[in-house]
Amino acid sequence: MYLAKIVGRVVSTVKQDTLAAIPLQWLQPVDARGREHGAPLVAADTFGLGPGELCYYITAREASIALWKLDVAVDAAVVGKVERIDLGETGEK
Amino acid sequence: MYLAKIVGRVVSTVKQDTLAAIPLQWLQPVDARGREHGAPLVAADTFGLGPGELCYYITAREASIALWKLDVAVDAAVVGKVERIDLGETGEK
Amino acid sequence: MYLAKIVGRVVSTVKQDTLAAIPLQWLQPVDARGREHGAPLVAADTFGLGPGELCYYITAREASIALWKLDVAVDAAVVGKVERIDLGETGEK
Amino acid sequence: MYLAKIVGRVVSTVKQDTLAAIPLQWLQPVDARGREHGAPLVAADTFGLGPGELCYYITAREASIALWKLDVAVDAAVVGKVERIDLGETGEK
Amino acid sequence: MYLAKIVGRVVSTVKQDTLAAIPLQWLQPVDARGREHGAPLVAADTFGLGPGELCYYITAREASIALWKLDVAVDAAVVGKVERIDLGETGEK
Repeated sequence: MYLAKIVGRVVSTVKQDTLAAIPLQWLQPVDARGREHGAPLVAADTFGLGPGELCYYITAREASIALWKLDVAVDAAVVGKVERIDLGETGEK
Repeated sequence: MYLAKIVGRVVSTVKQDTLAAIPLQWLQPVDARGREHGAPLVAADTFGLGPGELCYYITAREASIALWKLDVAVDAAVVGKVERIDLGETGEK
Repeated sequence: MYLAKIVGRVVSTVKQDTLAAIPLQWLQPVDARGREHGAPLVAADTFGLGPGELCYYITAREASIALWKLDVAVDAAVVGKVERIDLGETGEK
Repeated sequence: MYLAKIVGRVVSTVKQDTLAAIPLQWLQPVDARGREHGAPLVAADTFGLGPGELCYYITAREASIALWKLDVAVDAAVVGKVERIDLGETGEK
Repeated sequence: MYLAKIVGRVVSTVKQDTLAAIPLQWLQPVDARGREHGAPLVAADTFGLGPGELCYYITAREASIALWKLDVAVDAAVVGKVERIDLGETGEK
């Protein structure tokens, strides 16, 4: 799973039928210090997180598990909110 | 899922049998401001989107779900059209 | 799926049993203008394409679908030959 | 599988139900000499490794296998601790 | 599949149970000319290849197929040894 910051919401009315009623967020992956890295992406989010909140998300086939259905056409889903990361003594520079 | 802009159509007559009658688009991934990033790709599209339209697509095994069949030899498919992205107050710089 | 140019053939006699009799090509991914990008790869090819021909290929688990068997140890397979790409009016710069 | 160093622990109380009671580590991928490369990630860890320890992890769907359950919403899991890597005579420069 | 050179052996005694008795190699991906590119990785190898030998490997879920078991916690496995690559007339520059 990767860390990401919620940046916005994706508005899409013409979409594949299995995606009906699934909220889509616009995420920016970040590192442990909140610095952006990599390309932003669209992910399903059933937690209703708001802009600026930190989350972690899963990708590919298992993203459907987060929605409790295996036949949804998604490949990215938020699976939790991050309160904090406890860095160890030998932690990241 | 990632955002992409429809750029063109891929013409292929010699193809794997399960791909028969499935339209193939040529997509350029873009960010929330429409700037191109990353390599363009070929994706199945059952929405019939035209050049310049903004969409989001899924990849890998779950791309078949977008075609309502699980035995199609595709690993990328358009799953919706994007009207707009609402960026939050703490949105992307 | 990504575009690639057939570059050569991979000769391998010591290989996993499910790969017996499956031709392996050496592919170089290219963009719509034929410019190389990204790392070359080894892919199964049941079309018998020759050096210089343009194709598109799928990756990961669904590559097996292209071989009509689900238990083959491959993760990349050619699924079609590309005649041309019709770029739209707002096409790629 | 890739090598990584345990860097810290991810604290998350609001999370997808299947993730309950699964410890989440913050990993930094490293090469054979312990040099960091690539983006850090969040992974499930049932070994209870501590900061600074070297491990290897798997990703995507098979990460669930490491947890002995196939319906967990994870896409990365630690599968072993690395004692050392024996480089051959023609080893990496 | 990608080409790689065997670089060393990974020694790990504390590991996930399904990995017991599976030899783990340390691979460096290379191109057709043997030049290194990309990050080295850990892969299961049932061929017993030695340092310096050229192989190709598969990744993700299908790596288990190479071990004839579908419930092994691996996501990379060597599937063959490469004798040579025959480059075509229009081959890679």
